[in-house]
Amino acid sequence: MIRRGFQVAARLGHHRAFGSSTDSMFSRFLPEKTDLKDDALPDASWCLDMLSLDQEFLEKTKSSGWIKLPSFKGKTQPNGAVSGPCPPFSGCDTAHLSPDKGDCRIFTRCIQVEGQGFEYVIFFQPSKKKSVCLFQPGPYLEGPPGFTHGGSLAAMMDETFSKTAFLAGEGLFTLSFNIRFKNLIPMSSLVVMDIEVEKIEDQKLYMSCIAHSRDQHSAHPSLAGVFLQLQLEEESPQ
Amino acid sequence: MIRRGFQVAARLGHHRAFGSSTDSMFSRFLPEKTDLKDDALPDASWCLDMLSLDQEFLEKTKSSGWIKLPSFKGKTQPNGAVSGPCPPFSGCDTAHLSPDKGDCRIFTRCIQVEGQGFEYVIFFQPSKKKSVCLFQPGPYLEGPPGFTHGGSLAAMMDETFSKTAFLAGEGLFTLSFNIRFKNLIPMSSLVVMDIEVEKIEDQKLYMSCIAHSRDQHSAHPSLAGVFLQLQLEEESPQ
Repeated sequence: MIRRGFQVAARLGHHRAFGSSTDSMFSRFLPEKTDLKDDALPDASWCLDMLSLDQEFLEKTKSSGWIKLPSFKGKTQPNGAVSGPCPPFSGCDTAHLSPDKGDCRIFTRCIQVEGQGFEYVIFFQPSKKKSVCLFQPGPYLEGPPGFTHGGSLAAMMDETFSKTAFLAGEGLFTLSFNIRFKNLIPMSSLVVMDIEVEKIEDQKLYMSCIAHSRDQHSAHPSLAGVFLQLQLEEESPQ
Repeated sequence: MIRRGFQVAARLGHHRAFGSSTDSMFSRFLPEKTDLKDDALPDASWCLDMLSLDQEFLEKTKSSGWIKLPSFKGKTQPNGAVSGPCPPFSGCDTAHLSPDKGDCRIFTRCIQVEGQGFEYVIFFQPSKKKSVCLFQPGPYLEGPPGFTHGGSLAAMMDETFSKTAFLAGEGLFTLSFNIRFKNLIPMSSLVVMDIEVEKIEDQKLYMSCIAHSRDQHSAHPSLAGVFLQLQLEEESPQ
């Protein structure tokens, strides 16, 4: 039932967003040429901890097999997550939506002002099927006064899970996740998320995420999630 | 340990955002006079289903004890969720943040353009300790192409949980939640979330959320969550 429900979106995503069937999964995340702005590059809002950890992982891309995943806002982005104009909406009268309703944007890149929303970069290690996300939640992601909204942490974890699940085993859709909060996270502080694929079984990827501060003294939320694998269909030759 | 960790934020929230100790919890959500814009009012982006269900629940506020919760972006809002300038950031160099770093905003009101982000309104029924959230996720909340990001659904559920937990039993902080996805939700379609407090035990509120389309034909995600109760301290007389 669930698989049938998701298959439509998988086809849609394939034809609208994914490259040709001969492209590797990595090439979808690493376009050789694009005029799109990579939002996973340092900007003036990044704190010193985030800048130096980013540099550490960039060094690892040269020697230890890590890959930095670029990130684009939406619409015409070449990776598999989002692109293209919104499809016809269903079950809803959308005549009143603003004229630029076709301007879809990946949720974790929804806020444009530097430092105010989701500032993050994801690195992936293919041979170990694991990722690290460096995340600096801005003041537009507030929950309790002065602290990050639990929902924004869940969203960032889900986004990193989905990228990792796709690259590690063609996992395309979140089936479930379970998040436990341990401490409140001050806004604009650095959160380091360590994501691992625990196992792949019966077309499902079982994943874990442990979040912590850079010095690992502050335990942040932990998350467990299950993703569904869906083999993408071959694209018909044009 | 967790309670001690959260107590600081509870005090902070109390002194910065909550009204005097003689105010009822409801009055914190229902200020008699404010010049702030209530973002939980219909706008041109709301679909017909959302408009008519909103009207139905507004009728219930006159006769069936339901209360509509206004919603404000942040900073000087009178409810307990967010307000005031950001506190000093910890563990991070924030010198590079933009000058308006004090402009905090509640996460689910982070996108200003009508219809592009979180469009929602929450109604609460005190005697039954339950809420309904009418949610229309806009195209800036995209996950799979054309569909709503799972993280944005988790965020909206967490926000509705937190409002309900606070009003139903002074539950202030999310300890955990568990979300199961059933179908993908097209962007800009209406999601109806039914939230209930299942039990209150050992200073914890156990809550559930079932999401569905208006006609209940489409099963959407379900969520279970646990919130921590924290008695707010009396405020010192000025």
